[in-house]
Amino acid sequence: MKKIRIGIIGAGRIGKIHADNLLRHPQAEIAAIGDLFAGDELNEWAKQRGIPVVTRNSDDIIGDPSIDAVFICSSTDTHVPLIKQAAGQGKHIFCEKPISMDIRQTEEALEAVKLAGVKLQVGFNRRFDHNYRRVREHVNAGAIGDVQLVKITSRDPAPPSEEYIGSSGGMFMDMMIHDFDMARYLSGLEVEEVYAQGGVLIDPVFGKHGDVDTAIVTLRFAGGAFGVIDCSRKASYGYDQRAEVFGSKGSAATANDHPNTAVLSTEQGVWSDKPLYFFLERYEAAYRDEIERFVDCLVRGDELPVDGRDGAAAEKIALAAKLSLQRNRPVKLSEIE
Amino acid sequence: MKKIRIGIIGAGRIGKIHADNLLRHPQAEIAAIGDLFAGDELNEWAKQRGIPVVTRNSDDIIGDPSIDAVFICSSTDTHVPLIKQAAGQGKHIFCEKPISMDIRQTEEALEAVKLAGVKLQVGFNRRFDHNYRRVREHVNAGAIGDVQLVKITSRDPAPPSEEYIGSSGGMFMDMMIHDFDMARYLSGLEVEEVYAQGGVLIDPVFGKHGDVDTAIVTLRFAGGAFGVIDCSRKASYGYDQRAEVFGSKGSAATANDHPNTAVLSTEQGVWSDKPLYFFLERYEAAYRDEIERFVDCLVRGDELPVDGRDGAAAEKIALAAKLSLQRNRPVKLSEIE
Amino acid sequence: MKKIRIGIIGAGRIGKIHADNLLRHPQAEIAAIGDLFAGDELNEWAKQRGIPVVTRNSDDIIGDPSIDAVFICSSTDTHVPLIKQAAGQGKHIFCEKPISMDIRQTEEALEAVKLAGVKLQVGFNRRFDHNYRRVREHVNAGAIGDVQLVKITSRDPAPPSEEYIGSSGGMFMDMMIHDFDMARYLSGLEVEEVYAQGGVLIDPVFGKHGDVDTAIVTLRFAGGAFGVIDCSRKASYGYDQRAEVFGSKGSAATANDHPNTAVLSTEQGVWSDKPLYFFLERYEAAYRDEIERFVDCLVRGDELPVDGRDGAAAEKIALAAKLSLQRNRPVKLSEIE
Amino acid sequence: MKKIRIGIIGAGRIGKIHADNLLRHPQAEIAAIGDLFAGDELNEWAKQRGIPVVTRNSDDIIGDPSIDAVFICSSTDTHVPLIKQAAGQGKHIFCEKPISMDIRQTEEALEAVKLAGVKLQVGFNRRFDHNYRRVREHVNAGAIGDVQLVKITSRDPAPPSEEYIGSSGGMFMDMMIHDFDMARYLSGLEVEEVYAQGGVLIDPVFGKHGDVDTAIVTLRFAGGAFGVIDCSRKASYGYDQRAEVFGSKGSAATANDHPNTAVLSTEQGVWSDKPLYFFLERYEAAYRDEIERFVDCLVRGDELPVDGRDGAAAEKIALAAKLSLQRNRPVKLSEIE
Repeated sequence: MKKIRIGIIGAGRIGKIHADNLLRHPQAEIAAIGDLFAGDELNEWAKQRGIPVVTRNSDDIIGDPSIDAVFICSSTDTHVPLIKQAAGQGKHIFCEKPISMDIRQTEEALEAVKLAGVKLQVGFNRRFDHNYRRVREHVNAGAIGDVQLVKITSRDPAPPSEEYIGSSGGMFMDMMIHDFDMARYLSGLEVEEVYAQGGVLIDPVFGKHGDVDTAIVTLRFAGGAFGVIDCSRKASYGYDQRAEVFGSKGSAATANDHPNTAVLSTEQGVWSDKPLYFFLERYEAAYRDEIERFVDCLVRGDELPVDGRDGAAAEKIALAAKLSLQRNRPVKLSEIE
Repeated sequence: MKKIRIGIIGAGRIGKIHADNLLRHPQAEIAAIGDLFAGDELNEWAKQRGIPVVTRNSDDIIGDPSIDAVFICSSTDTHVPLIKQAAGQGKHIFCEKPISMDIRQTEEALEAVKLAGVKLQVGFNRRFDHNYRRVREHVNAGAIGDVQLVKITSRDPAPPSEEYIGSSGGMFMDMMIHDFDMARYLSGLEVEEVYAQGGVLIDPVFGKHGDVDTAIVTLRFAGGAFGVIDCSRKASYGYDQRAEVFGSKGSAATANDHPNTAVLSTEQGVWSDKPLYFFLERYEAAYRDEIERFVDCLVRGDELPVDGRDGAAAEKIALAAKLSLQRNRPVKLSEIE
Repeated sequence: MKKIRIGIIGAGRIGKIHADNLLRHPQAEIAAIGDLFAGDELNEWAKQRGIPVVTRNSDDIIGDPSIDAVFICSSTDTHVPLIKQAAGQGKHIFCEKPISMDIRQTEEALEAVKLAGVKLQVGFNRRFDHNYRRVREHVNAGAIGDVQLVKITSRDPAPPSEEYIGSSGGMFMDMMIHDFDMARYLSGLEVEEVYAQGGVLIDPVFGKHGDVDTAIVTLRFAGGAFGVIDCSRKASYGYDQRAEVFGSKGSAATANDHPNTAVLSTEQGVWSDKPLYFFLERYEAAYRDEIERFVDCLVRGDELPVDGRDGAAAEKIALAAKLSLQRNRPVKLSEIE
Repeated sequence: MKKIRIGIIGAGRIGKIHADNLLRHPQAEIAAIGDLFAGDELNEWAKQRGIPVVTRNSDDIIGDPSIDAVFICSSTDTHVPLIKQAAGQGKHIFCEKPISMDIRQTEEALEAVKLAGVKLQVGFNRRFDHNYRRVREHVNAGAIGDVQLVKITSRDPAPPSEEYIGSSGGMFMDMMIHDFDMARYLSGLEVEEVYAQGGVLIDPVFGKHGDVDTAIVTLRFAGGAFGVIDCSRKASYGYDQRAEVFGSKGSAATANDHPNTAVLSTEQGVWSDKPLYFFLERYEAAYRDEIERFVDCLVRGDELPVDGRDGAAAEKIALAAKLSLQRNRPVKLSEIE
């Protein structure tokens, strides 16, 4: 049985999640893991999982000719150089979102990937969520007719740390990039114009860093359909991730996942538990499935389910939203770069 | 436009509800209302509604040759003599449930109705409930295939007064008679055997009157299908009235009605309002529709939607349940004379 | 018992609905009904209801000194002159929405009402809907903390006739004016800025009349909260009327009403009936309650629950939306008039 | 880190599920797996998982002094001798349900376990289901007051093979034993009396083997509360596993799990996917958690969450149900044994 040998660059939370999901795949083998701050803890973690190499130098991974594919889970500013380097070595790539915060650099990276003839998957895990996938299936099957409107709700249960906020790239690029991808994925349409509103309603710390914590972004798709995304850094009842696609023949909508279906009815009313807390809970299976699909596609030589063009498209929408917020006017995607 | 002239005997809560629903029907006219305790209050109530005659003597109503139909809403012990008398005068009859607590007397009343060639509708209002009716439609349409199981939940929000308990005829005859009718209505099948369990779990006052406040009744239908009804005199979250019919091709189930669809999500959980409080709220439209159908059928000369045989059938099940509880064994309906 | 004598001007569908609801109120009395096209049909309709006067001349109603209040249910262009005239005669007024399509005329009418010291209620029936009212109660009670976002979905089951489209005043003034009022009602906040997008996705006939059939309107409230309304002239599954208010402590959301709670489960999936078909079904109780409140307030001398200022506020939002769509840019309400 | 060395006896479907769940536990180590029909396939399966020993002789496992605990997943008739043998060797035991079909043999096995001072967990996986566990938590927390009624629905999506039916021990012992355990678990009460009804409504093959395919079992608990379980071998819409506990202060109820929350609304109605297909899907996490708890308890020396007494209690209810069905009368548990 053919095995794909994989090196992981970046051993933060998401790098480790991907590693554990890779270990579940019978045709994936983790050859090495690298992190700038690798030390005893990572060594122990890798040892428990039988990962033979731990390094502080990503060159040890990219330069290893026995490695078929690399996972780029390091900080965003490292993505483009690492993609170029890995592509140059003929390695397939799984890269976390966003590829970069500069669409020209992203395009350069994609050019390198194309030239090298390697494959690149971007970490849009929500495409593998059971709920969104089912909505997409209904849309693709024509069950709702022509798409007229896409609505997405995206609310985190709690804001990130100030440290994270400062280097996140802002709400559009960090958080809503997933929603921009969802808008394209669920509708099967391309975005042409964006209008973004945003404000600081939750915590002044966002304003301090030039960011917003609450936003409404409306989209105009090629062909005339509309989109609207509402986004918040804090929903006190937990992670709120819903979507609806409305069309000429009906609507396909999805609600949140809950930890159980138990309902308590008393004199005070009817009560149930909050939605699953955050992305680790809600998208646990989606993270597993995106990795499974990545490995399966490499094994079989199939097209990847989400590629660099999808990454670039979402980045452009994020940049247009940023500009729209600054100017308080609609921005066409053709204005970006 | 032909009008049906109606006399109402018994001006308690249910008599007044029927009166108000009759007043809404363009082809119904209330000619008189009678009550043993008629007085100033009833006179005023009737005057506001333009009801010309108020009497303490039911003979004034049954003896009035201009009256086409009588509503018998007086106490249960008066039903049989009033039915016989009204039938003898050629009047159509709407009678509250149960017809009587003695199946032989009920049969005598039905015999009188048959001989007189008049029509009799029994007050099984739930047959007109939008939820149960839809379940029945699915069953009738064959959507669930052959019926294998009928499940009914029937819980009141609060026990009645001790005075009521004492004269109610007991849980099976007073409260569950509706459920026994529902079991027949929803399944389209006849009951052949009954096993009843019951206990006093809510208030000892029920035991004092030889009654129970909690019961489980299982049914065996002709052809082999099963039924089970759970019944309680007190659900602290409000009136709980649900049913499910399960068959070879699927299930048709109905939930409670709620005063609104609002859902509140906070750090404490997800919360909504309790179901509608009691039968007046839940069955408001059903009470209206049962009267509308009664009048419509008389106007058109159609068959009534629920007749005396339905009343007698439910009474037999109630009597079998009573005997089963006493003997703690299954009882065949053929044992009930 | 004091009775309010009422004259109705305009005997179209909505005028007749209000009439029937007035007839249910023990302290309301319909003295006259007027319609430009009054004829045999209206005479018969009025006779059945005991309404003594039918006229083609609204002066017969406004000039009748025995009449306490008038209902203005005629075409929109007649609202302002009729309000001025009725106010001049000291009559209280119930006026359908919108008061007018010209905010200066609306202000003139409100001025006349103020000078005359009479009361004016605008026909925003949705304020009396059980679902929206419950959301508002949660918001008012502080259950969701500070409002950050209001989301409204407003979709009709089927487009109106071309004749109606041509004279409707357009989607913003005709249909979304209800939603603009809901945005204010549910949040308790005033709108400061509007951005509207719209298109013709359903039927070119809308474009022919310079109108749109699909729209997204985003709102910015005083204090910084956001609003977004999506609107469509055609949802194939029926009337879709939902809202959510999201705040610092949680969310209050409401779903559609359905004709029953029955659920059919088969090999093909889990299936239930569509929402109630259209506004007559969904808002039946709301129409009744708005009339009841109007009469009750006049009887008691209380403030009306929704008044001329509410009417003008919603009109301003509609005009701002119209301008925003034309210019494809956000429009401040201060730009209107 | 202490590791529990485990041997598995019986490599059918459930044995393999337990094995894979054991492999996920960092403190469990599978030392050997045994099956009467072990061959190339099982060798390959074990090799892929790094299980060093595969045997046809269970003595190789029970006799291995390095093994701490055995999983008994072989056919029911082997459970008692294997338990006795394993207990005699001082090994902790995880045994699939039922321990046996003869309550005296079960008691003998439990006696052997007690004498040996080892621990025994019975495979009542549903106790670890997220939905049932939450209902139990509500009951334990007193949220519904005193338990008055337990209702359980238990329907398989498709009947087993005839071969399985013939050796299953019948619906009560094979399928409903889980429900009998749930009745005890959810209520925290002991059963005193049972009345069972059953019939062959789905497939005559059940009757051929003296079994039923549809059953209603009512329970009377110590203290007077009631229970009712409805059971079917075939629900065309999938695995139907629901429960409700009703008490003096309210109700805690749980619904099915679904593969996603997507809802499709069209002109035909509102539609969603069926529940998860069968026990492997519905109880996937429960199977994992029961194994995790078993290993954790052994590591820490804690009491097991479900033990031999729970196994025997459920068997007694099953035997009482069987007798009740034969005699068509209620049977007290004291009549069994």
